Amino acid sequence: MRGGKTLLYILSIAGFIAVLYFVLSAGKGLQAAHMAGVQYVSSGAALKHDVASAFRHPLPIFILQLAMILVASQVFGYLFKKIGQPAVMGEIVAGILLGPSLMGALLPGFSAFLFPATSMGNLQMLSQVGLILFMFVIGMELDIEVLKKQAGAAILISHFSIVIPFASGVALAYFLYEKYAPAGVTFYAFALFTGIALSITAFPVLARIIKERGIANTKLGTIALTAAAVGDVTAWCALALIIAIARAGSLSASLYTIMWAVVHVAVMFFVIRPLLQKLAVNASRDKLIKRSRLAIIFLIMLGSAYACEIIGIHALFGAFLAGVIMPHDWNFRKLLIDKIEDVALVLLLPLFFVFTGLRTHIGLINNPALWGVCLIIIAVAVAGKFGGSALAAKLAGERTKDSLSIGALMNTRGLVELVVLNIGYDMHILTPEIFTMMVMMALVTTFMTNPLMNIIERVYK
Amino acid sequence: MRGGKTLLYILSIAGFIAVLYFVLSAGKGLQAAHMAGVQYVSSGAALKHDVASAFRHPLPIFILQLAMILVASQVFGYLFKKIGQPAVMGEIVAGILLGPSLMGALLPGFSAFLFPATSMGNLQMLSQVGLILFMFVIGMELDIEVLKKQAGAAILISHFSIVIPFASGVALAYFLYEKYAPAGVTFYAFALFTGIALSITAFPVLARIIKERGIANTKLGTIALTAAAVGDVTAWCALALIIAIARAGSLSASLYTIMWAVVHVAVMFFVIRPLLQKLAVNASRDKLIKRSRLAIIFLIMLGSAYACEIIGIHALFGAFLAGVIMPHDWNFRKLLIDKIEDVALVLLLPLFFVFTGLRTHIGLINNPALWGVCLIIIAVAVAGKFGGSALAAKLAGERTKDSLSIGALMNTRGLVELVVLNIGYDMHILTPEIFTMMVMMALVTTFMTNPLMNIIERVYK
Repeated sequence: MRGGKTLLYILSIAGFIAVLYFVLSAGKGLQAAHMAGVQYVSSGAALKHDVASAFRHPLPIFILQLAMILVASQVFGYLFKKIGQPAVMGEIVAGILLGPSLMGALLPGFSAFLFPATSMGNLQMLSQVGLILFMFVIGMELDIEVLKKQAGAAILISHFSIVIPFASGVALAYFLYEKYAPAGVTFYAFALFTGIALSITAFPVLARIIKERGIANTKLGTIALTAAAVGDVTAWCALALIIAIARAGSLSASLYTIMWAVVHVAVMFFVIRPLLQKLAVNASRDKLIKRSRLAIIFLIMLGSAYACEIIGIHALFGAFLAGVIMPHDWNFRKLLIDKIEDVALVLLLPLFFVFTGLRTHIGLINNPALWGVCLIIIAVAVAGKFGGSALAAKLAGERTKDSLSIGALMNTRGLVELVVLNIGYDMHILTPEIFTMMVMMALVTTFMTNPLMNIIERVYK
Repeated sequence: MRGGKTLLYILSIAGFIAVLYFVLSAGKGLQAAHMAGVQYVSSGAALKHDVASAFRHPLPIFILQLAMILVASQVFGYLFKKIGQPAVMGEIVAGILLGPSLMGALLPGFSAFLFPATSMGNLQMLSQVGLILFMFVIGMELDIEVLKKQAGAAILISHFSIVIPFASGVALAYFLYEKYAPAGVTFYAFALFTGIALSITAFPVLARIIKERGIANTKLGTIALTAAAVGDVTAWCALALIIAIARAGSLSASLYTIMWAVVHVAVMFFVIRPLLQKLAVNASRDKLIKRSRLAIIFLIMLGSAYACEIIGIHALFGAFLAGVIMPHDWNFRKLLIDKIEDVALVLLLPLFFVFTGLRTHIGLINNPALWGVCLIIIAVAVAGKFGGSALAAKLAGERTKDSLSIGALMNTRGLVELVVLNIGYDMHILTPEIFTMMVMMALVTTFMTNPLMNIIERVYK
């Protein structure tokens, strides 16, 4: 029986080859004259494969970009962790090094091959998807219950730590505007944007630093986290307002945008949020989010992002807001974060760093005057944020050591700052030079956090 | 004390507003004359927001596309489940309805707004990322151990169920070529491609149908699954070969490509796979895949996809192959599939259906002759695959009922067929008309599976 089957098998394969050979020979003489009416002639270019040109097709370039970005961000993330910096800093630096600042300068040919101008659209769009998912996760990580409990001191510290750098930023803008602002941007827009850019605290990076230092459950850690969370909400509201004003041209013209933004927030909190509660109860019980429910959640995220973009603030606020109104059940949020975080953070978010890096052109800061401006921006940013937060903490009755620690922590700009700077760049409020300087400010202030904390701990031990 | 703080707070805010007002008034007269040397003038267009034009920017359109695709695929997935069809069929149909076949015909204005030609590049690239992740998951779901155990009957059935439709397809191509093939495509390429397009079984859809019918652990279910798995591997190898031949122009010219493909497979199996085993042991123990390891896995997937694209077969094979060589520890694969599946399948894969739908233009089949060709393609596809598989099962000694059931199951083309058809379209081997006909063939054969199984069960009860 077994032998019979094998024979049958061999015979059928032989028959198959015979049929194939016969048909293919018979077909050799045929000519494809495609039916009239529809124009469709194969150019041959799409069909023919040669290795040299295969390298330049959009898909392989895109895959190579993803792979290179993945390697660079992981290697630098690892190295930075080794030297006591958060991994995300390494990823940001990797992005900058892949850009014109290093790779473009050293290997211009390879750089032009790997990041051709035609590929930037895809890269940007995919990095925006990554950012939308990321802002959604940040929104979920913001625990409103904690905010409610810790109100008092944290709100004072938080607002002070925004007001002082904001005012410093506006004052700084007064001196920068005539020489460094792009023509066509009003002083209003430039000054308000500089102010907000100096006032950002990166809640997620801060949270990670606090966790890594093991101070998450101390009073210091709680105050800093809460202040950063309040600051996050305040800064995003202020930024939304500034974008509305900048886009509308004046405060009064932006009222329409602001009104719609308020309506949107109200709908999200009082209509969508109650509807979502039911999902959370089921998911938390089953330790599982069904695929159809995940789709509903993605839909809310996308819908909110879309609404905010159309209203005239930014899609990222919508995603952040959608994260904030997710049901509070922590198990539910954790399930959701687990689902989204890995693919979004490992594969898509590094695209944003690289996209930022491609815009950051350290070579533009090519004379002592510009380096001077860069240093001044960094100095004002540190003085405003570190000084303002520490002063506020001291006024709120904290010990000197804790006040300085809070100042050092709040000074962390991290990746949220990069999000803000990219918005400013896209809106043409920041020139490439100012953008590059601000990116360097974001890097320096984030780098400072851990060493500064170490110094403060050593001095006040 | 509390009152004092509040007063301090109010005073500082008042001071802040005063500073702001002063600086902004002072700055009003300033003119931004951007430094010489660098050309950077804000056009105002990027800054000014008006709602009418906001709708047409790439980012909101992209978000809207994602949201619409999400809604349509979920709604149709749900409806199809209700009528006893796999959800994925609903998603595919949703994609076609969003394309020119329905929405483009009924709402041409909205269709042009939602899917402008400029957005197709982004959509394609993102859907390719989704497909690469999907093929990677399919590769992981293919359990080589099962293949080894079940060799005998399943291999015979599987190869027969490819050989017969393949030969039928080649014969069919002989009659279609002169009238319906695009000019410039050789008969070789067209015939081989038609052959393979008729021979596909959709392993993932089949697996889901078998699971839903509760026959996963029966002899019938096991044979069908194994035969489909063998068929998957065989068909992909054949397709890779055909792409290599089509691109190189002839069998002999493709030897270089084939040689490199063999080298690539060997490297993946004998170099990468052993290296990966260590990852799996750790992950399975900790019930967790570290982010850095996930990055390594993504890198292998991207690297393999890139290599296959450059070699001259298709990026998707590389992703599939990377899935196949993942460590066999099922816990590890399950962890990995869990991580990737939801975001990839809920958010990205529907993009591929819609992208396919946008290419499927049922309106092109606009006369009785074309509908006749379409029916012939469907008839040959069903006769070849259903007939061939059932015959093979009968020859292998199965009961008539089980043989027919195996035939019905193997006839499921599903989504894998769409992947193959899109490759043919991209390579300009298929015209839009033949592409549309083949898509309809894929839909009809997949729709048939469940009703056919029901009929067979009723007749032979």
